[in-house]
Amino acid sequence: MEFEESGIGEECGVFGCVAAGEWPTQLEVAQVLTLGLVALQHRGQESAGVVTSNGASPPIYTSHKGMGLVSSAFPPEALLKLRYGNLGICHTRYSTTGMSELQNCQPFVVDTLHGRIAVAHNGELVNSRALRKKVMRHGVGLSTCSDSELITHLLALTPPMEELDSPDWVARIKNLMSETPTSYSLLIMFKDVIYAVRDPYGNRPLCLGRLVPISRLHSSGAEEEDTEGWVVSSESCSFQSIGAKYYREVLPGEVVQISRHGVKSLSFVPRPEGDLPAFCIFEYVYFARPDSIFEGQMVYTVRQRCGRQLAIEAPTDVDLVSTVPESATPAALGYAQQSGLPYMEVLCKNRYVGRTFIQPNTRLRQLGVAKKFGVLTDNFAGKRVVLIDDSIVRGNTISPIIKLLREAGATEVHIRVASPPIKFPCYMGINIPTKEELIANKPEFKDIAGHIGADSVKYLTVEGLLSAVQEGVTSFQEENNSKRVGHCTACLTGKYPVELEW
Amino acid sequence: MEFEESGIGEECGVFGCVAAGEWPTQLEVAQVLTLGLVALQHRGQESAGVVTSNGASPPIYTSHKGMGLVSSAFPPEALLKLRYGNLGICHTRYSTTGMSELQNCQPFVVDTLHGRIAVAHNGELVNSRALRKKVMRHGVGLSTCSDSELITHLLALTPPMEELDSPDWVARIKNLMSETPTSYSLLIMFKDVIYAVRDPYGNRPLCLGRLVPISRLHSSGAEEEDTEGWVVSSESCSFQSIGAKYYREVLPGEVVQISRHGVKSLSFVPRPEGDLPAFCIFEYVYFARPDSIFEGQMVYTVRQRCGRQLAIEAPTDVDLVSTVPESATPAALGYAQQSGLPYMEVLCKNRYVGRTFIQPNTRLRQLGVAKKFGVLTDNFAGKRVVLIDDSIVRGNTISPIIKLLREAGATEVHIRVASPPIKFPCYMGINIPTKEELIANKPEFKDIAGHIGADSVKYLTVEGLLSAVQEGVTSFQEENNSKRVGHCTACLTGKYPVELEW
Amino acid sequence: MEFEESGIGEECGVFGCVAAGEWPTQLEVAQVLTLGLVALQHRGQESAGVVTSNGASPPIYTSHKGMGLVSSAFPPEALLKLRYGNLGICHTRYSTTGMSELQNCQPFVVDTLHGRIAVAHNGELVNSRALRKKVMRHGVGLSTCSDSELITHLLALTPPMEELDSPDWVARIKNLMSETPTSYSLLIMFKDVIYAVRDPYGNRPLCLGRLVPISRLHSSGAEEEDTEGWVVSSESCSFQSIGAKYYREVLPGEVVQISRHGVKSLSFVPRPEGDLPAFCIFEYVYFARPDSIFEGQMVYTVRQRCGRQLAIEAPTDVDLVSTVPESATPAALGYAQQSGLPYMEVLCKNRYVGRTFIQPNTRLRQLGVAKKFGVLTDNFAGKRVVLIDDSIVRGNTISPIIKLLREAGATEVHIRVASPPIKFPCYMGINIPTKEELIANKPEFKDIAGHIGADSVKYLTVEGLLSAVQEGVTSFQEENNSKRVGHCTACLTGKYPVELEW
Amino acid sequence: MEFEESGIGEECGVFGCVAAGEWPTQLEVAQVLTLGLVALQHRGQESAGVVTSNGASPPIYTSHKGMGLVSSAFPPEALLKLRYGNLGICHTRYSTTGMSELQNCQPFVVDTLHGRIAVAHNGELVNSRALRKKVMRHGVGLSTCSDSELITHLLALTPPMEELDSPDWVARIKNLMSETPTSYSLLIMFKDVIYAVRDPYGNRPLCLGRLVPISRLHSSGAEEEDTEGWVVSSESCSFQSIGAKYYREVLPGEVVQISRHGVKSLSFVPRPEGDLPAFCIFEYVYFARPDSIFEGQMVYTVRQRCGRQLAIEAPTDVDLVSTVPESATPAALGYAQQSGLPYMEVLCKNRYVGRTFIQPNTRLRQLGVAKKFGVLTDNFAGKRVVLIDDSIVRGNTISPIIKLLREAGATEVHIRVASPPIKFPCYMGINIPTKEELIANKPEFKDIAGHIGADSVKYLTVEGLLSAVQEGVTSFQEENNSKRVGHCTACLTGKYPVELEW
Repeated sequence: MEFEESGIGEECGVFGCVAAGEWPTQLEVAQVLTLGLVALQHRGQESAGVVTSNGASPPIYTSHKGMGLVSSAFPPEALLKLRYGNLGICHTRYSTTGMSELQNCQPFVVDTLHGRIAVAHNGELVNSRALRKKVMRHGVGLSTCSDSELITHLLALTPPMEELDSPDWVARIKNLMSETPTSYSLLIMFKDVIYAVRDPYGNRPLCLGRLVPISRLHSSGAEEEDTEGWVVSSESCSFQSIGAKYYREVLPGEVVQISRHGVKSLSFVPRPEGDLPAFCIFEYVYFARPDSIFEGQMVYTVRQRCGRQLAIEAPTDVDLVSTVPESATPAALGYAQQSGLPYMEVLCKNRYVGRTFIQPNTRLRQLGVAKKFGVLTDNFAGKRVVLIDDSIVRGNTISPIIKLLREAGATEVHIRVASPPIKFPCYMGINIPTKEELIANKPEFKDIAGHIGADSVKYLTVEGLLSAVQEGVTSFQEENNSKRVGHCTACLTGKYPVELEW
Repeated sequence: MEFEESGIGEECGVFGCVAAGEWPTQLEVAQVLTLGLVALQHRGQESAGVVTSNGASPPIYTSHKGMGLVSSAFPPEALLKLRYGNLGICHTRYSTTGMSELQNCQPFVVDTLHGRIAVAHNGELVNSRALRKKVMRHGVGLSTCSDSELITHLLALTPPMEELDSPDWVARIKNLMSETPTSYSLLIMFKDVIYAVRDPYGNRPLCLGRLVPISRLHSSGAEEEDTEGWVVSSESCSFQSIGAKYYREVLPGEVVQISRHGVKSLSFVPRPEGDLPAFCIFEYVYFARPDSIFEGQMVYTVRQRCGRQLAIEAPTDVDLVSTVPESATPAALGYAQQSGLPYMEVLCKNRYVGRTFIQPNTRLRQLGVAKKFGVLTDNFAGKRVVLIDDSIVRGNTISPIIKLLREAGATEVHIRVASPPIKFPCYMGINIPTKEELIANKPEFKDIAGHIGADSVKYLTVEGLLSAVQEGVTSFQEENNSKRVGHCTACLTGKYPVELEW
Repeated sequence: MEFEESGIGEECGVFGCVAAGEWPTQLEVAQVLTLGLVALQHRGQESAGVVTSNGASPPIYTSHKGMGLVSSAFPPEALLKLRYGNLGICHTRYSTTGMSELQNCQPFVVDTLHGRIAVAHNGELVNSRALRKKVMRHGVGLSTCSDSELITHLLALTPPMEELDSPDWVARIKNLMSETPTSYSLLIMFKDVIYAVRDPYGNRPLCLGRLVPISRLHSSGAEEEDTEGWVVSSESCSFQSIGAKYYREVLPGEVVQISRHGVKSLSFVPRPEGDLPAFCIFEYVYFARPDSIFEGQMVYTVRQRCGRQLAIEAPTDVDLVSTVPESATPAALGYAQQSGLPYMEVLCKNRYVGRTFIQPNTRLRQLGVAKKFGVLTDNFAGKRVVLIDDSIVRGNTISPIIKLLREAGATEVHIRVASPPIKFPCYMGINIPTKEELIANKPEFKDIAGHIGADSVKYLTVEGLLSAVQEGVTSFQEENNSKRVGHCTACLTGKYPVELEW
Repeated sequence: MEFEESGIGEECGVFGCVAAGEWPTQLEVAQVLTLGLVALQHRGQESAGVVTSNGASPPIYTSHKGMGLVSSAFPPEALLKLRYGNLGICHTRYSTTGMSELQNCQPFVVDTLHGRIAVAHNGELVNSRALRKKVMRHGVGLSTCSDSELITHLLALTPPMEELDSPDWVARIKNLMSETPTSYSLLIMFKDVIYAVRDPYGNRPLCLGRLVPISRLHSSGAEEEDTEGWVVSSESCSFQSIGAKYYREVLPGEVVQISRHGVKSLSFVPRPEGDLPAFCIFEYVYFARPDSIFEGQMVYTVRQRCGRQLAIEAPTDVDLVSTVPESATPAALGYAQQSGLPYMEVLCKNRYVGRTFIQPNTRLRQLGVAKKFGVLTDNFAGKRVVLIDDSIVRGNTISPIIKLLREAGATEVHIRVASPPIKFPCYMGINIPTKEELIANKPEFKDIAGHIGADSVKYLTVEGLLSAVQEGVTSFQEENNSKRVGHCTACLTGKYPVELEW
């Protein structure tokens, strides 16, 4: 299901790039940035922004922001404007607050006593209300409601700025991390470096990649000296499209400095004793692109394992397994493999429907989401179908699909959901409908199958999901909490990794 | 492969709608038309046009045309303008000639002595050059290079117009059909009727549907009196999204009149004795949406049969079968079913890449089409893969994909193509690269596997394709050539259904 | 008064250019054309179009059309597209029919048996209805309601086209002129020449200019060999901005051929015995730019003479003379000079108001046209003012201005109009409100002063206008009607130069 | 001369409106604001912004900003969004710094501990560099380079914000005024009031108006109870177009509170002992609209007096006086009146040329500014002309005009400039070319007549200008410096009203 139907969505993607070696660089940094951003477009379609620096002393920063998709927000003249950048950060955004104005676009750039900094943020500060009050009490006026502006002011305020040569950004970043536990993956650009920061709980993803000559892209023995630049991204899926090799994750609590000389781990800010990491489990279930790698494993593979686990937990006696295209396909194939049932396509999607603003009239509105799908009748007429979906949020999209299949000849339609029911709001960067809108909190959930018109409905258990996810985790925080695995399941269980309004 | 890569594309889609019963109608005809057109968007993305008529005497015609996708060409005010239509025709277009100007958009509307007519055309008249000369010799000036304008003038010229009450359009249409054998599927709107015309060879598709109350959409016993309107479309896939039921094909050589009173077959123009029908086989192989129905069979099913046939003709000893997403998937699943090999996904597509106009720099251009795909490494690393594609046109897109898979760990990559090599140009409405650009005509075709870096490459035979297609044909021309099956394979065999420049 | 207030407007402007000497030319023809068109923008703001030809055999034509002002309709890429033109014609248009669609834009280009021709037309054929029927009876379909398309078909039809080498355009043009007496100033481009045609009554203006090196622009002795190109334009005001020298008018009934070799008068089509020329007198009164030259005299000077004549016919006992800016200023200065009264400005115009689409609310709507003007109180408070206007069409714009002046302290406000009352419709290319809307046809016209709140209102007489205009006419038709002067005053007198529906 | 030619321009206009009486108001505040802004468009064409408040507790603020003219920046949906405003402020801007991005648009809105404030600023703080450092030392990050953001932070910082009920904005404003002497005319909106502030030197204009029922607009006895709203504006010319009556100026150093209950003078911040007011004299000479009122006199009248003074100081023996349209016309008429010479128009302007982006080619570039003008030859051929201009900045625009007149037959062309030569930069809100670009600082200025091709060139003296301006001043600062008159002539004399970098 796409965002507009599911009502659940990622809020942001961040991306950065630093050209290696001598500057001015041969690497066209602005193009790497925008193409990297295109690959993160699924994480936010409302606005996009890029800030580059030439890295000189004092640096010249150039920025471009625009509403809509990267493709429309970045016309050729925007790239021309940005072409002298030797490093830069960028951001794509979906707004939860309705303040979808250009001025809320990130990255946020401010002048401080020690120079200009730019900040791009993925996540949501759990204690932002208290922090806003704090900076305003200091006399600061806040011109936007974005956490990103708040973060820049927090960085500028403590320790108090003096007219010293060095602003000691690392101390400032560590101080910031001591004031807010989660959730943030941050890129902070100052002059000629980017600081990549991930909160101690590792709630939002962040990983590093290395740009190498395209010719050596796939040779395993590429040496360090080949490096043309370093990139940092919310998801590794962006590396493929710019010709970068996956390097490693930024670990929970880690502060990494990326410069023309390479990547350097500067510091680890620990979690409170006893707390586990809390990487958002919905990145695996739904948000991330299937070819991204988190914690050492490919998202596609995790989804396939969820499908296998679901087949074990909730088998069905049917003739074929199918998918609600496109995001549930890996789980459906996993279910088919585990169950031994044949996999068939039963729906095909009209990829142009979503983009039109033709308002269907009353008559056509009754068709609901069905008008986005064509039915492949021959594949299932007269047969019993189990349809795998990745999640059911409000329940209003699966229902017309079931009706469609039934009317086209399916004798039974069973629904298996490759994740547990969503019951709780997220305060850490995910846009989820209000508690009242979630089908799992409604009275009709007791007879969900009857409600949506299915022969049966079953969900993956929280334990099943966790085991499918954690089975393959291979990357760990090195310093103080090594080999400990944990994920945020707050939207499923109501157990938040930190107290809210910390 | 998408159009921009394959270089092969459909030129047009046509769609029409007539509200049934009393006028002014409750049916929002303009919305049905535009949503129907959206469902045909894969047949032409360059421009879109709609003309509606209120059906009165004299009729008021309203039109709107725009460049680009239907979604951008039809803003809300355009729909407002069209809202009094009780019937209408529309058209989506891809230009082969480079004259991508608004004035070439269809439908074409002209005033004649007997009133205004509107024409929408899918196809390409084989003898257009001679016909253009003919009408110009008559003193007519042609303001566009579209066949559509030519057709309107041919309709107006013969028999000579007199100031009679009735223009006898059917006689005019039959005369037109006697002057040009193929290829055309035409919608001609005059006052309160639409004439749907398919050339005697049935080269381009055209089918009829019936709008019923959404609530009765899937009840099998819906009576005629339920009918809210009649629709006619290049492909039946558009019926799903507007809530219409498939009715039947317009048959080769048939002239159908669609009015508020229903659908009426007026005439059949026969082919020359001995000639078979010549429906374009590439509609099955590549162009049409998989959920469309031609000749009584679903396109998806035909593609699956092509995959099965391919598995019989060209088996491989590998570990898994996969697809180049998304159009080759039915063939890949068919190949897997027939061969008993497991089906796995190896590539995932970044659906945003295609839309950006960020010009990749020299460095990134080397990535080629690979930057559109993410590799699902876990699914195939260390394994032997057979990759099914639907067609290979110029050969420059499959090559980087093979490289990608190999470098990500595939031990063998075999290519199986679910259609025969394309060797000849099409003069009947399909945009195919020049003969010189087609890989099948190049010297390197002899060692195509070596050229594209595959372990082996095999194509479906023409016989295999024809048998996969013709196995399920169940709809036939009723009048004079009944039960005879035939398809145009000109681009594969060089055998054109009629002499060119007829 | 601007068009939107007066409701009276010119419909079109035409412009053409042929580079002299060797082709490809150094002269940037596309830029000359568009800048020439900008200078004719006051004659039509709704759409603009340019067609160029490279003049080769066969010629390559390139066209660009767009809605709105030339400045927005011709972005840089449009000029790029047109850059290989060695000659071209262009057109700017205001639509009277409401069919303001791009397809109605001129120039109109059609393919004929003898090649492609392009036509740009200023005027309105008095017998277009009959002519449309005629070509449609011939079987031609008309795709627009513009006279321009009609003209191309008339040119193509007679004499019947044969596959001869030469189409003999001059014979065709003369035939066209025999079928319709007025009103048209036409530019017809064919391959490497432009034919400039003016109807026998000379109803619409058309004149010729010569492009010379800018350095020699103002030297009086510039020789023919300096000529860089030839231009033809509705008004000579366009010559200044492209560096052309005024050459001469195209005379009534004349057909001029413009080629790289120069300008050649080909033919004169006479008027019926006894008929006088009928150049539109409102070109002098209102439409034309003041620096344009018609019939050997500058428009500004004619307007000044109208003001002088008005002072003689309708003197006032006041303290100062002023103008409704900006078009009435020459007449006001003439009135002041003749009467010996001081000239003062009393209003200043807010040039940005006209461009906004902010809909004033009910409250502000009461301000009417007054919100476009600032009052220069100091200049007239406590004084008696005579305000000169060029014409009063509907009477709803002068009334709030009078109120404004009075309330700001004018003790008396007298209105003198430098043209007679408009009472009749124009069928020859001018957009005039319906007879019922014209103030001169309303009952309240009897007490027009009372109705608009003036102390007195007086108009120039038809005789006074004619004498002011004809006093300075120095250019005459050379052939058969020489030295005879006449003007069309149909909108003032109801005397049309030809019978309508000829 | 328009801005693009003269290279000299105003930077900003500000406008505000508060509906009187009960809220929600009948007054459509958003429309008043935007139409008011349109009337200030000559003060800035680069961007426009509006912020409205509903005035409730807590207030809801709505804003819209856009690039370009008000007409394009405020489409109907923007006005819809703003429609619940009961008060609001707006701003139009021309950027001097090249940072023409949307985020620099004003008004600037920030959240403070005591609520949200909005600030619009016309002027330039002479000590902004020091003030920026000061707030940044406090830990504040500045996200734009606009003084407006700086002002909001200065307001928020002192006195330190506490969580009290009342922020005491007046104390904060007075503190701000104590930190920066000039130049600023400020509108500060907080909840339900607007504070209108003018710096102690009165360098930038600001005045108050009263909205009355349109029907009573011009009745002199309108009572206070008629008041529908209060407006505040950079120039009184905006009052005419929204139906407001001029009320009075905001005086130098004054803080005025505007609320639904009316206008209240809160405070006067004095200048240092001995300093005179320093209202920018170029507002009179060039920037302001002629119908605006400053210091009790109409700008048009002052310009006319400058022309009279010029005729006394620099008489000529010629046949006629004329103007470079349009801004120099009042001075030219004054010159004509004083000298007794006849006034004639010699140039007419093509008002569409300025808007086109057609780049003239090399050939046409030689025409220079001349291509914007048509010559009215008849009025001056064979005569001696004195041409009045309002100012000569770089000298490159008058030169082609002189050439034009001469070549069209003027026997002598004398230039008289109704202001002294500009020699020094402005640091108080006016955009002036660099010292090196000013013709008055170049060696060729010694023979300026020879350089520009005139027979003679003479300028108004500084004393002449001051006497022409100060003769009519009737509004004075009431409190401490009453009846003292002074104007900033820094760009002419180098005498700045305060030390720079105060």
